[in-house]
Parts: sequence; structure tokens; C-alpha cells
Amino acid sequence: MVAMFDRVAVVGVGLIGGSFALGLKAGRAVREVIGVGRRPGPLEEARALGLIDGIGTIEEAGSADLVLIAAPVMQTETLLAALRPHLAPATVVTDAGSIKGEVIAAAKRALGEAVGQFVPGHPIAGSDESGPRAARADLYRQRTVVLTPLAENAPAAIDRVRAAWGACGARIELMSALQHDAVFASVSHLPHLLAFAYMAAVARSDDAATRLTLAGSGFRDFTRIAASHPEMWRDIALGNREALLAELEGFRRLLDLVQARLAAGDGPALERLFEEASAARRRWNAWSTEE
Amino acid sequence: MVAMFDRVAVVGVGLIGGSFALGLKAGRAVREVIGVGRRPGPLEEARALGLIDGIGTIEEAGSADLVLIAAPVMQTETLLAALRPHLAPATVVTDAGSIKGEVIAAAKRALGEAVGQFVPGHPIAGSDESGPRAARADLYRQRTVVLTPLAENAPAAIDRVRAAWGACGARIELMSALQHDAVFASVSHLPHLLAFAYMAAVARSDDAATRLTLAGSGFRDFTRIAASHPEMWRDIALGNREALLAELEGFRRLLDLVQARLAAGDGPALERLFEEASAARRRWNAWSTEE
Repeated sequence: MVAMFDRVAVVGVGLIGGSFALGLKAGRAVREVIGVGRRPGPLEEARALGLIDGIGTIEEAGSADLVLIAAPVMQTETLLAALRPHLAPATVVTDAGSIKGEVIAAAKRALGEAVGQFVPGHPIAGSDESGPRAARADLYRQRTVVLTPLAENAPAAIDRVRAAWGACGARIELMSALQHDAVFASVSHLPHLLAFAYMAAVARSDDAATRLTLAGSGFRDFTRIAASHPEMWRDIALGNREALLAELEGFRRLLDLVQARLAAGDGPALERLFEEASAARRRWNAWSTEE
Repeated sequence: MVAMFDRVAVVGVGLIGGSFALGLKAGRAVREVIGVGRRPGPLEEARALGLIDGIGTIEEAGSADLVLIAAPVMQTETLLAALRPHLAPATVVTDAGSIKGEVIAAAKRALGEAVGQFVPGHPIAGSDESGPRAARADLYRQRTVVLTPLAENAPAAIDRVRAAWGACGARIELMSALQHDAVFASVSHLPHLLAFAYMAAVARSDDAATRLTLAGSGFRDFTRIAASHPEMWRDIALGNREALLAELEGFRRLLDLVQARLAAGDGPALERLFEEASAARRRWNAWSTEE
């Protein structure tokens, strides 16, 4: 039996790239996965763990059937620019970046006329852990991968990326990069921004030690994402700045409303807003846990 | 052996009051617990479950050694006013309300000169569940109970309340009502307000359904408390309005800072603030999980 892909190159062999490699292997969708990266340590580890079959160069990646860029989003342009001179006409490239507008702009700069070979993607999966050792064959099973295809993408290129994620067990959603960035500004980037701002406010208060001693389980859940990686979130915030600022304005309108009702002592109006939020959250919970 | 308390009355036999009763019994600190409440259903259930030994009236509660008011905070004044004509001089009363300034004002109105018999308290423990069936003997074990004693409280009255919570396995912290209300506005009430406002903003967006379909684990943690009870949180927000508005102002200053740095594209300043928050959250996590 001939596998779906003869050779797949994964640039960045951490949690995201390593799990993609393992998922393809588990789905018997690839003959060989090569890993590409800047540092030999993670690559050697990925090979020892069986995530990849060999360590390759960016030149070799250029002739693979499929290349996944699974590196910090700010490196996308540099990596694609390095790939371009070696890019075979039949090779399809995709990425796993959590913002898409900036990544597409970077891809257009780096790839020029070859940008049609780049199908932007974003797997909605993660873990508290990172690195090759955190990779799992089932990370993408039943999870969603969003693709934001370009006008320049041939249908066959989109299908190839779709098939690869499908082999990992993922569901595919197609949408525009603009909608993608607004959606993730809303449900992911803004909560991180709010959690960082809230946690900094608590840490800067005069009696921070007393406050933190008495903080309980609600505080624990609400601030969990404030422990996230500062450099990564700086890049995401800046990379999705416009959508994030727009979502922040929308949140501030609701916060103004809550504040005004609280200041006015308007209990019924405050309760209606809390009820609206609580009902929405309970509906979401029922939906998301029945899956 | 004579128990610490001959008779304890618990007004409100749900999670909080029922667990107090069970904790005292497990600590062999009480001969008899009577339950008092408006509705017979929960009282019968509490008796059947062994939380209480009998169902009593507010008149009978007045002559107990210790009375715990474990009802919604907005009912405190009515309950204390009903208790007052029956209050024996040696009876000590405490409560479990999550705000203290308003509760103390209500106690002064309801009890008048007898307010010295009321020692305000707040056990920092809870559960997603509620009602008599959720009560557990170990709910308060290793948890903190904050007492905010009044100038009118005799040391012996404070000691009696301290001893009761100690018998349940809790640690006691003493602080002023003003500090208590600022601390809980900061680490509990404000996060609820922010989570309600954020969740309402998402729910009101044009493409709310798409957003909620793609929301992941960060969203889940951040919004968990937005599912909280709207009426209860209306009462807490209004009852602690001044402290909560002050904390909200402090948060908005940080949010303004984050927004300005994001709008200016100031990556280093944004990263420093994220790093400050992330480090504080990671320190808190290390401290709070080592206990």
C-alpha cells in the first residue's frame, strides 16, 4: 500500500510539530517524516522518541510532499524565505500559527509568486507542556484545525493539507483569515490579555501578599492563563493587534455597562447581565462537554 | 467528657452550614446541633443525612451556645432581627457571609446593644455543589476562616467562634472588615465581574456561535466563574460595591497600560508586563500547591 505522503518535513519538532508527525504515522499516512530545526538537541530528541525518521535541512524540506512550519509565528517569514529557493513546484507548505493575517502577509513577502503553495492553518490544540517529549499521536484527534486558504491556493493544495490533518483525526473548518483573527482575538487572545492585566494589578497592590494568601479556586481558574509564556503572547498580541484592539473595545463597552449599573446600585439590571453571561456559559459548557 | 459546645444552632443547612455541623460533630466539639430554616424540605433532608440532630426555631436558636448564620448575605439583617428578642446573654452568633462591611452594618441595625455577641466571619471554602447533600465534614479542613471582630466583641466571644472553626480543622485569620472587603473585592468579586462582562461580550457578538465553537481550554478556565449564580453575585457586588469599584479602577489602570502598549506596538514594554504577571502567577501556583 502506498502512503498518502511519501515524505513530510516538519520544521520545529516540539509539541505541535511532533504531534503532527506522530498523528500522520499513527494514521499510516506517511512513509517518512524528516525534522528540521535550528538546534540539534530537540531534533536528536525527536528522532530518539520516534517522532521523526531523520534530521533534514531546509533544502531537503523544499522537495517534500508537505511541509509544516511549526515554529513561533514571528519566525515564519525567515523560514519561508529560507525555504523558497529550494521549493519544488509540487510541494505544499502549511503552518500552525495562531494568527493568520500577519502570517499570510509574511508568506507573501517571503514566497512571492510561489505563495499559492502555502495553505495557512491553525490547529486548535495545545497542552501545558511543550517540547518533543510532550508530543502525542492523539493531540489532534476530535480537535478542530482551521484553514484560511488563499485565493492563490489550488484546490489540490488545500485538499492535501486537509487530508493530512484528517489523517491525524482532526475536523477541518475553513474561514477567511480576517474572521479567524477576529474569532481568536475574542476567545483566546483577549482572555490572555485580561488575565495578564488582572494578575499584574493584584501583584502590584499594596497588600498583594495577603490577597494572594486568601485567593481561592475561582482566582485559580481565572488566572491560569496569566502564567502563559510572555514572549509568545507578546508576539501573538502584536501580530493580531488590530483585531485584538477591536475586541478589547467591545469588552470595555460591557465593562462600562457593568460598572455603571454597579455604581448606580441597579440590582435588577446587574442581575440581568450576570444572568445573560451565566446562561451563555452554561449552554457552552453543556455543548462542549457532550462532544 | 463534656463537648466544647452543648448546643449549636445552624441557620441555613446547605453546603456551608451543613459542613460546619458535620465538622463540629467529627471534631467531637458539640453535643447537639439544631437546624433552623424557612423551608422544611432542606431541614428534613439535613436531619435524614445526620447533619443536624433536630429541627429548631429561631427562638430556640437564641439560647444555643453558638449560632451560625449560613444564609444569603442579604437575609442577615432579617434573621438577626428575628433572633434578637430570644438572644440569651451568653449566646455567641457568627456568620459565613462573603462580605463583611454590609453584614456588620446590618448586624448593628438588627442587634443594637447586643451586637457585641455577633462575631463576623467568612469561611474561605466552597464547592460547585450546594444544598444539604453537598455538605462534608472536611470542607473546612486546612482552609482559612477569616474573622473580622468588632470593637464590641468580648475576647471570650471571639475565642468561642475561633474554637468552633478550629474544631472543623480550619486556620483562622483576623483582619478588619475594611481589609477583608478590599481583599475579596480583589481576588474574588472582581474576577467574577470581569468574567461576567467578558462572557456577555462574547455572547453578544455577531458571530457568537462560530466563536464559541472554536473556544478552547484557556477560554474554559477563564470563564468558569461566569457560570456562577447571578442573584448571589448581584448581592455580593452590591453589598461590596465601594471596594469593588475601587478594585475595578485599579484593574482599569493596568488595562489602559496594556492597551496603550499594544496600540503603540511597544513589544518590550508589553512583554515586561506579561512577564510580571506570569511570574506572579507561577509563584502563587508554586506556593498554593505546596500546602
